[in-house]
Amino acid sequence: MSDVFVTVEPEGRKIRSIAGVTLLDAFAASGVSVRSECGGRGACGKCKVFVTEKKRINEVTDQEKQVLTREEAALNMRLACQVYLEGDLTVMIPVESRVRQRRIQVAGVDVTLELSPAIRKLRAQPSPPSLLDTQTYSERLLRFLEETYDLRGLTIGYEALKKLPGALNASHRDVTATVWNSREVIDVEAGDTTQRAYGLAVDIGTSKIVGQLVSLDDGQVVATSSLENPQIIHGEDVISRITFASASEAGLDQLQSIVLDGINAVASRVCEQAGVHATHLYEMTLVGNSAMHHLLLHIPPLSLALAPYVPTVKSSLNLRPKELALQMNEGGNIHLLPLVAGFVGADNIAGILSTRVHKSEELSLLIDIGTNTEVNLGNREGLLCCSCASGPAFEGAHIRDGMKAVQGAIERVSIDANDHAVHFKVIGGGKPVGICGSAMIDILAEMFRHNLVDRTGRINEKASTERIRKANASLEFVVAWREETDKDEDIVITQGDIRELQLAKAAIYAGCAILMKRRAVSHEAIEKIYFAGAFGNYIDSENAKLIGIIPDVSTENVVFVGNSALSGARMALLSTEMRREATDLSQQLTYVELGAASNFSDELISATYLPHKDLTRFPSAHQIVDNNSRTG
Amino acid sequence: MSDVFVTVEPEGRKIRSIAGVTLLDAFAASGVSVRSECGGRGACGKCKVFVTEKKRINEVTDQEKQVLTREEAALNMRLACQVYLEGDLTVMIPVESRVRQRRIQVAGVDVTLELSPAIRKLRAQPSPPSLLDTQTYSERLLRFLEETYDLRGLTIGYEALKKLPGALNASHRDVTATVWNSREVIDVEAGDTTQRAYGLAVDIGTSKIVGQLVSLDDGQVVATSSLENPQIIHGEDVISRITFASASEAGLDQLQSIVLDGINAVASRVCEQAGVHATHLYEMTLVGNSAMHHLLLHIPPLSLALAPYVPTVKSSLNLRPKELALQMNEGGNIHLLPLVAGFVGADNIAGILSTRVHKSEELSLLIDIGTNTEVNLGNREGLLCCSCASGPAFEGAHIRDGMKAVQGAIERVSIDANDHAVHFKVIGGGKPVGICGSAMIDILAEMFRHNLVDRTGRINEKASTERIRKANASLEFVVAWREETDKDEDIVITQGDIRELQLAKAAIYAGCAILMKRRAVSHEAIEKIYFAGAFGNYIDSENAKLIGIIPDVSTENVVFVGNSALSGARMALLSTEMRREATDLSQQLTYVELGAASNFSDELISATYLPHKDLTRFPSAHQIVDNNSRTG
Repeated sequence: MSDVFVTVEPEGRKIRSIAGVTLLDAFAASGVSVRSECGGRGACGKCKVFVTEKKRINEVTDQEKQVLTREEAALNMRLACQVYLEGDLTVMIPVESRVRQRRIQVAGVDVTLELSPAIRKLRAQPSPPSLLDTQTYSERLLRFLEETYDLRGLTIGYEALKKLPGALNASHRDVTATVWNSREVIDVEAGDTTQRAYGLAVDIGTSKIVGQLVSLDDGQVVATSSLENPQIIHGEDVISRITFASASEAGLDQLQSIVLDGINAVASRVCEQAGVHATHLYEMTLVGNSAMHHLLLHIPPLSLALAPYVPTVKSSLNLRPKELALQMNEGGNIHLLPLVAGFVGADNIAGILSTRVHKSEELSLLIDIGTNTEVNLGNREGLLCCSCASGPAFEGAHIRDGMKAVQGAIERVSIDANDHAVHFKVIGGGKPVGICGSAMIDILAEMFRHNLVDRTGRINEKASTERIRKANASLEFVVAWREETDKDEDIVITQGDIRELQLAKAAIYAGCAILMKRRAVSHEAIEKIYFAGAFGNYIDSENAKLIGIIPDVSTENVVFVGNSALSGARMALLSTEMRREATDLSQQLTYVELGAASNFSDELISATYLPHKDLTRFPSAHQIVDNNSRTG
Repeated sequence: MSDVFVTVEPEGRKIRSIAGVTLLDAFAASGVSVRSECGGRGACGKCKVFVTEKKRINEVTDQEKQVLTREEAALNMRLACQVYLEGDLTVMIPVESRVRQRRIQVAGVDVTLELSPAIRKLRAQPSPPSLLDTQTYSERLLRFLEETYDLRGLTIGYEALKKLPGALNASHRDVTATVWNSREVIDVEAGDTTQRAYGLAVDIGTSKIVGQLVSLDDGQVVATSSLENPQIIHGEDVISRITFASASEAGLDQLQSIVLDGINAVASRVCEQAGVHATHLYEMTLVGNSAMHHLLLHIPPLSLALAPYVPTVKSSLNLRPKELALQMNEGGNIHLLPLVAGFVGADNIAGILSTRVHKSEELSLLIDIGTNTEVNLGNREGLLCCSCASGPAFEGAHIRDGMKAVQGAIERVSIDANDHAVHFKVIGGGKPVGICGSAMIDILAEMFRHNLVDRTGRINEKASTERIRKANASLEFVVAWREETDKDEDIVITQGDIRELQLAKAAIYAGCAILMKRRAVSHEAIEKIYFAGAFGNYIDSENAKLIGIIPDVSTENVVFVGNSALSGARMALLSTEMRREATDLSQQLTYVELGAASNFSDELISATYLPHKDLTRFPSAHQIVDNNSRTG
């Protein structure tokens, strides 16, 4: 047998093979990854390559004539499984024929994912019936899929059944079947529509619904859109919505129907942006906290708000579009990721999925800050989680000049050590109208650093700055003078605001502390902190540590991961393996109910200090505390 | 161990047992059949008995206090599993505690069926959660059902999930769970609703929709109703409906939506008659011919009407109420029995189920007469079937004075041997307006018997009766003189009518003959003929044989089974075993395509003779034929 050499572009890699084998087999033997769904029968059309320099190979086969378009053939495109090597050859493997691995963009984390979506679109050419072979059309289709793609035990869904005769007739029995979970044919279309497969990952936040339209063929995000959660008109926070939904059946009806409207609005926007027809939207993966989950499903949510805070259901669910009146392919699937507990939802599981802390050797802390802040501690040997009632202070509520991180909000603040001049940065530029969460952290940290507040959070009345003043018998610190602002008064942080921030940060740290105690580790053992949440990307981690929101780990090990819940939902859309991991997490995460922890109040009170009552936990803050106590 | 004796009423049977065992165990050891779903844990409440003469037994247990009502306790009702024998005892087993076997009323056939519906309603008392036991409510319910009823791998459906919190709250966690196919919880209600379980068996005929509401708890039919199939406005027969549905998408939409409306109307009528709420209607079993099946499902039906007459799907289907907009419990199930072929539908399978020919040793012929007449031949060693295009003559179409078997139709006719006076019976009494199918058979047979038509079907012009006359250059026979009728003219059978009837009966017999030939049997081997169909009960079988509709078997072996399709649908409702049998039948029935049989035209032409060209097949008609040929 004579050796032949194949040069594989664009890498220019040269592989050795022998005459007589197919190009696909030569690839496989040399570890060149090329897609193939039909096992080399020339049926799936996935292993397309360009033959750029042709020596001796066989003529285009009948199978290729069926699968390749005229244009593709004119460009010397061939199916690797149909090319038999006879001499040396140069081929180019186009991106769409490469094995489907994809780096998932999670801010701060690199994840490589083998694409294995629940949705697969497969070409099928079932044979025609005759008087002697009267198998039904659905049996013929299923038989073809079994024989060609080794899909055994497939069934055909009702929506696909209705479309089957029309699709077969319109295309002379050359159709594309959409298969869900290697289990059910959910759609049939005339011709080759294999590349028109889309999914929508949705994060249903208490305040925002964010959706990403993703190509299930190549894993690319093709459009993103978000919307204020329309439930907000019935309450800003989870508890008030639960109360509203529990007051009457009509309340629950309403909260469900408006959030579904919201999801439909996001879906139709992203489809429009990307020019995708809703019938090609085959799956949605939804994540959200447990209250969002129950309201979406019209499950009475009261038990989530009452001890022992037990959900009605926590396992993952697959629903039909008709069951939720969501606009997508009618045979499609809506996958809800599982919950962990009443206050730890699918968004937390999605966050873990995307940061991979459950697969990492590093002992990691994953903190998703919101009105409820979820904290996870652990690694691949196990994870603890809890929910901290941190409240909406960091989102601006209960803070005199607080606001969300939108245009006009001060987002970054520093205070001059000498003259206490305040430098700030405003979202969108221009003059500020208020302060958002990241700036609150900066202000509190800078005031502490420069001895303008003491360890108990009291504003230092004796500090030599006119920015500290008394108003209504209470102290306050002026962040921006009236003339610097876009409103009619100074922007200030009051003593009351600082108390709110102390409670909020104490709630978060106390959660971390109780998990650390349960795991019997100190801050020194923590190798990574992942910071998630809407404002996570804009926090100064030095400042966050200084006021004691998070344990004292070195700054380079603090990673901001943005909306990790949405990233996790996207991963679940692209990989059924991720769904299995999510189910495992739902069962294996150890939920710690903080209210039931005996040391909780002590931890909470100690954590209201800046950075903490127990300074041995915050060695990096020692010097500042020492300085302050000398000068204070 | 001392012997104790239990007298079991109402039979008065005396069984021997030993002290210390439970009454339920004593029953089991002696072969007394009593219901029990929970394996004797006192949870299901199915093994209720009245203790009519109490000697020494234990006090009422805590489990009994939970399951028995105050009234039941006052009547000395006990759970057999909770009574420990200490001395002799007399008990009465009420009907509802007897093991659920039921004789199914199929006209002409006695079927005993063990009740095993797909729907089971089970009481459940899941334990409350606590901070230390935070399993979700659905997990608690499923765990209870697994532990109490040994139902493993159960899931909970979306509709049940939505109802779960409300049901648990309203009843202090004492609920009734409805389980489908030992697989999925589809409903949850507060309190004990175990007896409120209903199903609807529906036969979707081309001309009539008939529904029977059945208690799934005891197998009784509680209401029956029927309705003209509203599709009739788009064509009387299957082919014209297929044509209408194939002309436009709107046509298919319309035919589907009106038949669904029809089923909903029947369902709401029977529920109203029986005082049953639609939420307690958990299952429907639907049968119909293949065209009715496809139209109901909105599956384009054209392939059924074009060679090779292949359905899009023939396996049984389970659909959700939302998928078909049928009004019943939202978590319920719609079960469509499987088809056999393009012209042999689920109604034929249901007919076989109810006559049990597939389980019988007797070689049987099952004939369901309609516009298409299905014929089945075989026994437990195998069945052949075919569909005969017998046309609508027997329903009155194409017959001058023909009509359906409704009020005012002549249904029974005899002709005096001497004076040829005609005696007839009219449906509903009174004067007639036309002739229905059973009377057409009588007339043709009587005319043949008295030599008023010859073997070729020609009216005997020379017969000495004024009833035979010429009109419009053609012969006719007067059945009723104008003054005897409720119309302005005589009721007659024309030579043309007789030709139509000959073609119709020939089509049916030719089907029988081809199956007999395929099976290599003559009429002598046929041990039973089952005659089904709307008018089946009113046919005179001697006359049917004489004109050669059916093979020549002795009259006592011809059995009329009425709407056997509906009976079969009811059996499938009451027994999942019947569904398995239906699936087997769908795969194992050998469909014979008459159009492909080489001897079909010969058989058809020979069968147009009275009774048949080949008289050796009809020995009972010999004498009449001999007489006629002597006198003719």
